Amino acid sequence: MKIIFDAMGGDNAPFEIVKGALMAVKEYGIRALLVGDKEKVSEIIQKIGFDENDKIEIVHASEVITNDESPTMAIRRKKDSSMVKGLKMLREGEADAFISAGSTGALLAGGLFVVGRINGIDRPALAPVIPGEKGAFMLLDAGANAECKPKNILQFGIMGDIYSRKVLGKINPKIGIINIGAEEEKGTEFIKESYNLLKNSNMNFIGNIEAREIPKGECDVVLADGFVGNVVLKLFEGVASTIFDILKKEIYSSLRNKIGGIFLKPVFKKFKRDFDYAEHGGAILIGIKGYVIKAHGSSDAKAIKNAAGQAIRCIEGKIIETIENEVLKYDL
Amino acid sequence: MKIIFDAMGGDNAPFEIVKGALMAVKEYGIRALLVGDKEKVSEIIQKIGFDENDKIEIVHASEVITNDESPTMAIRRKKDSSMVKGLKMLREGEADAFISAGSTGALLAGGLFVVGRINGIDRPALAPVIPGEKGAFMLLDAGANAECKPKNILQFGIMGDIYSRKVLGKINPKIGIINIGAEEEKGTEFIKESYNLLKNSNMNFIGNIEAREIPKGECDVVLADGFVGNVVLKLFEGVASTIFDILKKEIYSSLRNKIGGIFLKPVFKKFKRDFDYAEHGGAILIGIKGYVIKAHGSSDAKAIKNAAGQAIRCIEGKIIETIENEVLKYDL
Repeated sequence: MKIIFDAMGGDNAPFEIVKGALMAVKEYGIRALLVGDKEKVSEIIQKIGFDENDKIEIVHASEVITNDESPTMAIRRKKDSSMVKGLKMLREGEADAFISAGSTGALLAGGLFVVGRINGIDRPALAPVIPGEKGAFMLLDAGANAECKPKNILQFGIMGDIYSRKVLGKINPKIGIINIGAEEEKGTEFIKESYNLLKNSNMNFIGNIEAREIPKGECDVVLADGFVGNVVLKLFEGVASTIFDILKKEIYSSLRNKIGGIFLKPVFKKFKRDFDYAEHGGAILIGIKGYVIKAHGSSDAKAIKNAAGQAIRCIEGKIIETIENEVLKYDL
Repeated sequence: MKIIFDAMGGDNAPFEIVKGALMAVKEYGIRALLVGDKEKVSEIIQKIGFDENDKIEIVHASEVITNDESPTMAIRRKKDSSMVKGLKMLREGEADAFISAGSTGALLAGGLFVVGRINGIDRPALAPVIPGEKGAFMLLDAGANAECKPKNILQFGIMGDIYSRKVLGKINPKIGIINIGAEEEKGTEFIKESYNLLKNSNMNFIGNIEAREIPKGECDVVLADGFVGNVVLKLFEGVASTIFDILKKEIYSSLRNKIGGIFLKPVFKKFKRDFDYAEHGGAILIGIKGYVIKAHGSSDAKAIKNAAGQAIRCIEGKIIETIENEVLKYDL
């Protein structure tokens, strides 16, 4: 198995990306293809000191796509960027998956235009796995499609269902759609139509889910259009980090609190780990003809290694082939 | 000043509602008009023991609107419900404000059909004040209108701006619109059009706000359609309460953690208070010709008293008159 790493993408690139790739080679026994500034990447490998150099390959890329540029333009113009080169190699079958912590927008555009959609899937989705109180759940679409049609939502459901079973090991995953009330007649026309399509599907559709219930993790697959999904993903992150910031500030504010903080350190640590979605790998760009994982922009080496683990589970679970077969059963 | 309390609405009605109303009479020197089951309400007042009975009036209502029934139907049919009676008295000018912890949907329908809209406001909004890291902010619309037009968003902005200045005491409040990216060209057509209207307004419009930034409270007025706003409000509540549930469970899981928990008790308490939006009163139904405050369904007496305080600030700030005058400046 061979995985391509975008060595230049992310806040901590290239060092943490290269380090994470090396960790993945060690831990999972894969081969790594590092795309990026050859000189810099080689230097990092030397610095770290790695003894399985036969499992690493470096492909030089002279350009880097940043978060500031227009995603579609960047993908079209920067042919020699680490992202475009990596995606092209994925398309050509030179490796089994591609991991990047770079621009989400560019990766979405590149996945669509360079790698291409799965037959029967109209719109690929960005699908992160989010930690919930009763277990991790998948959210799709978390931002690939700001506007959606009901049939896109059905397709997201089909893909989420398959991913939940094959990668997260869920049995008969519960599928829900985000709505502003629990009752069937609630919400916009778009939601009502999507609801109907899901209700008549083969999935274990449990109906509407109100945003208040999402963090509990009762639903294994949470569906929404890319606008609402993106708001949910980011607010989740925002509320959690704000709470921790405030608690931290309070804990440092007095001796009594500091002592309490020392006692509770393992709790906070465990909690941060549980709520840290880098632990769960990255967000898969699902619905395209290749395994593309978007790691968080602030990913460290461990997060990159975890994203590689996630890619391996996708490859072994044959997610793409299963989606291709499953969508044939629907009249889409 | 006289405030009407829906004695029968909410999870803790009628006891906590009546108790809260009495607290408001004591603390703010207002007169209270309690609408509900006369016998039950009288019993509670006797039980509590109140010495300013000349400031309380009870109006009997034989029906109660529950959360399970269709809001519009309930408002139309249950003419003798505490909510409909209270709203009618507000419309007739028998009091200055109406507070209810009952069904949100019914209150929205009742506000619109019984009390009526302010001239120039096409869609009233549900507008809670939410605690943020750098101060409380107003969110509108939090669920009155699942689907909106750009001009509705502009009107929400105008109303939020006025409320922020007059009730929350903000100087030159910052107005932002929830979007899936910070850049102007991001989002759906609906968002882009709304953005343009806001940009060309007299308000201190600071542009798009990503959901991650909302909890920080950098924006004083956060705008969205009622679907997205409702998701934000409920997810806020859901993530915060989930984090506290998990922390609590962890703290009770070992002696070491329990000790830490004892030391940090004041921190958690303060934090819970800061993040408890009952502290900030309720959500105003803004844009109708009367002050209607929706208190949280789980409100206790203190939350009801705080909602009364909020109503008083609205009345004194002449929010409705100011909105009426301000919208005239726009070609809506």
